[in-house]
Amino acid sequence: MTPGVEELLLELFAIFVAAKVLAEVFERLSLPGVLGEILAGVGLGPYALNWNRPTDTIHSVAEIGAIFVLFSTGLETSPRDLVRVGRKSLLVAVAGVMVPFLLGFAYMRLRGDLTHEAVFVGAAMVATSVGITARVLADLHVLSTHTAQIILGAAVFDDILGMVLLAIVAGFASRRGPEWLHLGILSAEAAAFALFMIFAAPRIVRRIHPRMEHLSNQNASLVVALAICLLLSWLAAKIGIAAIIGAFFAGLMFADYAPQWNLLSRVNGITEFLAPYFFFTIGSRLNLQLFGANLLITAGIVSLLAIVSKVIGCGLPLIRDGWPAVLQVGVGMTPRGEVALIVALVGLQSQMVTQSTYAIVIFMTAVTTLLAPPLVRFLFRNEIREHEETTMVAAVQL
Amino acid sequence: MTPGVEELLLELFAIFVAAKVLAEVFERLSLPGVLGEILAGVGLGPYALNWNRPTDTIHSVAEIGAIFVLFSTGLETSPRDLVRVGRKSLLVAVAGVMVPFLLGFAYMRLRGDLTHEAVFVGAAMVATSVGITARVLADLHVLSTHTAQIILGAAVFDDILGMVLLAIVAGFASRRGPEWLHLGILSAEAAAFALFMIFAAPRIVRRIHPRMEHLSNQNASLVVALAICLLLSWLAAKIGIAAIIGAFFAGLMFADYAPQWNLLSRVNGITEFLAPYFFFTIGSRLNLQLFGANLLITAGIVSLLAIVSKVIGCGLPLIRDGWPAVLQVGVGMTPRGEVALIVALVGLQSQMVTQSTYAIVIFMTAVTTLLAPPLVRFLFRNEIREHEETTMVAAVQL
Repeated sequence: MTPGVEELLLELFAIFVAAKVLAEVFERLSLPGVLGEILAGVGLGPYALNWNRPTDTIHSVAEIGAIFVLFSTGLETSPRDLVRVGRKSLLVAVAGVMVPFLLGFAYMRLRGDLTHEAVFVGAAMVATSVGITARVLADLHVLSTHTAQIILGAAVFDDILGMVLLAIVAGFASRRGPEWLHLGILSAEAAAFALFMIFAAPRIVRRIHPRMEHLSNQNASLVVALAICLLLSWLAAKIGIAAIIGAFFAGLMFADYAPQWNLLSRVNGITEFLAPYFFFTIGSRLNLQLFGANLLITAGIVSLLAIVSKVIGCGLPLIRDGWPAVLQVGVGMTPRGEVALIVALVGLQSQMVTQSTYAIVIFMTAVTTLLAPPLVRFLFRNEIREHEETTMVAAVQL
Repeated sequence: MTPGVEELLLELFAIFVAAKVLAEVFERLSLPGVLGEILAGVGLGPYALNWNRPTDTIHSVAEIGAIFVLFSTGLETSPRDLVRVGRKSLLVAVAGVMVPFLLGFAYMRLRGDLTHEAVFVGAAMVATSVGITARVLADLHVLSTHTAQIILGAAVFDDILGMVLLAIVAGFASRRGPEWLHLGILSAEAAAFALFMIFAAPRIVRRIHPRMEHLSNQNASLVVALAICLLLSWLAAKIGIAAIIGAFFAGLMFADYAPQWNLLSRVNGITEFLAPYFFFTIGSRLNLQLFGANLLITAGIVSLLAIVSKVIGCGLPLIRDGWPAVLQVGVGMTPRGEVALIVALVGLQSQMVTQSTYAIVIFMTAVTTLLAPPLVRFLFRNEIREHEETTMVAAVQL
C-alpha cells in the first residue's frame, strides 16, 4: 500500500465513528441522527476542537457520499406515486415551495443582503426533508390517515420542485451574477432535464428491463444503476446544474424497479458507508465563532419564517378540511434536510454566499428538524388516541 | 460543488463503465470477469492507450475498494466451516501453501533474482482464489461431490494461511531487507493477530450480538461492522502488515452473523461499486512493453510452476483416494486471484519488486485463472455425466 494509506484509513475510521456515535446519542434522545453527524463535524472540525481538518480525499469521498444520499432518496421516490396522490398534494407542494422561497428572499433583501445571497437562502428554505416526518408518523402509527397521505404525496412533488429550483440557483451561481439570458437558458435546461427524467427515463428503464436478464454479471442491475447514476451526476455538473440533481433523477428513473432488482438494500449499503463523510464535512465548514447576537437574531427569524411559510404554503390550500388538517400538514412539511444543506454548500463553495449565510441555513435546518417531531406528535394527538383505542379494543376482543 | 467535482465524476464514470463492459465481455466468453476489469486498466492506462492516468483520489478509492474486496471475502468465509471440513482439508491447504511458495522462491533464486523478489513471487503463488473454481463447480452441479467439498474446505484454510504469509512478507517489505529479529517479531505479531481474529473475535461478536438490538440506528449492524472493518484495516497497516489483512479478519469476525444481520448484500453493494477501481488500477500499473521474449519465458515457467505446485501440494495428500481425486483437487486449487494481485501491488508500491516481477505475477494470475475453468470441467466429466443421468432418470420418473 502507498505510504498515505495508514493516514487515510485512520481518518476514515475516526470520522465514521465520531459521526455514528453522535448519531446514536441523538437518536436515543429521539432527535434526528443526521444532526448528530453534522455536530460531530462542527465539534471536531477546524473551527472548534480542530482535531480534524478533512483532507482533499475526504472531501472527494464526501461528494460521492452526497451523490449517494440523493440517489437513495430518488430510489425511494416512485414517480408512480405522483399520479396516485393527485391534485391536492400537487397544490400543497407548489404553494409550499413558492411561499418559503418568497418569504426567505424578501426578508434577506429587506435586511440589506445582496440578491444572490437572498436567492440562496430562499432556495434553501424550499425543500422539505420528509424522511424525518415520515419516521415520526410511522412511529405513531398514523401513516394511514388522510393528512399523513397528503404530506407524503406533497413531499414527493416538493423534492422534485426543490431540485429544479436548486438546478436554477446552482446555474445562477456558476455565472457569477444575474445574466438573465444565461439564467433563462439554464432554467430551460434544468426543466427539460427534469421533465425528461420524470416522464421519459422510466420508460427507457422499462424497455431495457427484459434485456437485463441476459447480462452475465449477477449484479447486472446494480452495475447498470450505478453507471447511470455516475453518468447523470457528471452530466448535470457538466451542463451547469448540481451533480446531486443528476443522482436524484437517476434514482427516480430506477425507483419503480428498485424492489424487484433488489437495488435498495445494496445502494443503501453504499449510502450508509459514505453519507457520514458528507454530513461531517457539512459540519466542519460551520464557523461557530460567527454566532454573535446579530447572526443569532437573523438565524432565528429565518427559522421562524421557514416554519410559518410552510404552514401558510402547505396548510392554507387545505383550509376547507379544517384547521387541524392545516396545521398537521403545514408542520409536517416543516423539517428541512439534505437539500437545504446542499444548497448552502453549493453557495459556499462557489463563493456566492458568505460564511454567515451558510451558518444561517445550517441553523435553520437544525431548528426545523428539531422542532418538527414534538410538534407533529402534539398535532396528531387525537389520531394517536384513536389508534390506541382501536388497538385496545382489538386486544380485548382477542 | 468544488471545481474538481466534474472531473472526478467523469473519471469515476469512465473507469467504472470501461471495467464493467470488459467484465461483461469476458463473462460472456465464460472467462472470469475480474480479468476483464484488469485488462480495461491495462488498455486505457498510461502504458498503452494512455487515456486515463488514475489520479490520487482514484488511487485512494481503489485502496478502499481493495479493503472491501477482502472484507466481503472474509464475510463469506465462515470460521465454523473450518471445524466441519476437518483434517484432510487442512493437510491439503498446508501442503498447498508450502509447495508453491518453495517452488516459486527456488526458481526465482536459481534465475539469479534477489531474495526479496523471490519471496514476493513465492508469496504471490500461495493463495488460491476459490471463487472462480466454486462458480465453475456450481455451474456444473457437482458442488456436493467429495472432492468439491475438500476443495472448498481447503480454500478456507488456504485464504487464512495466505493472509498470514502476506502479513509476514508485507512486514518484510517495510523493513527493507531481511532483519531476522524484526521479521521474527512481525511473524509473531501477524500470527497472534490471525489467531486472535479466528478464535477470540467471533466470541466478542457473539457477546455484543444481543446488545445490537438496543441500538436506535436501523442499520446498526452494518455501521458496527464497517467501523470495525476500518479500525482493523488501520490497525493492520499500523503494526506493519497490509491493511487488507485487517479487513479480511474483520469480515471473518462477522461471517457467522452475516446472513442474520443482512450484512452480505449491503457490503456487496459497496464492494460492487468500489472494486472495479481497484482492479482497474492493478491493470493500469502493468507495463506491457516489458513483455519481451525473456520475460515471457520466465512468466510462462512461473505460471507452469504455479499449476504443478498446487497439483503436487494439494493433490498428493489425497493419493489414497486415487489419481482422479488428486487431479481434481490439485487443478481446482490452481486459480490465483485478488491475494496474488495484492501481494504484487504491495511489492511494487514498497519498491521491493521491479516492474518485471510485477508483470510476472499478473501474467501468472491471468494464466492460472484462464486455464482452471476448462480443466476443471474436463476433470469432472464423469461426475457431470452422473449428474445428468440422475436428472434424466428423475425427469422420466416424473
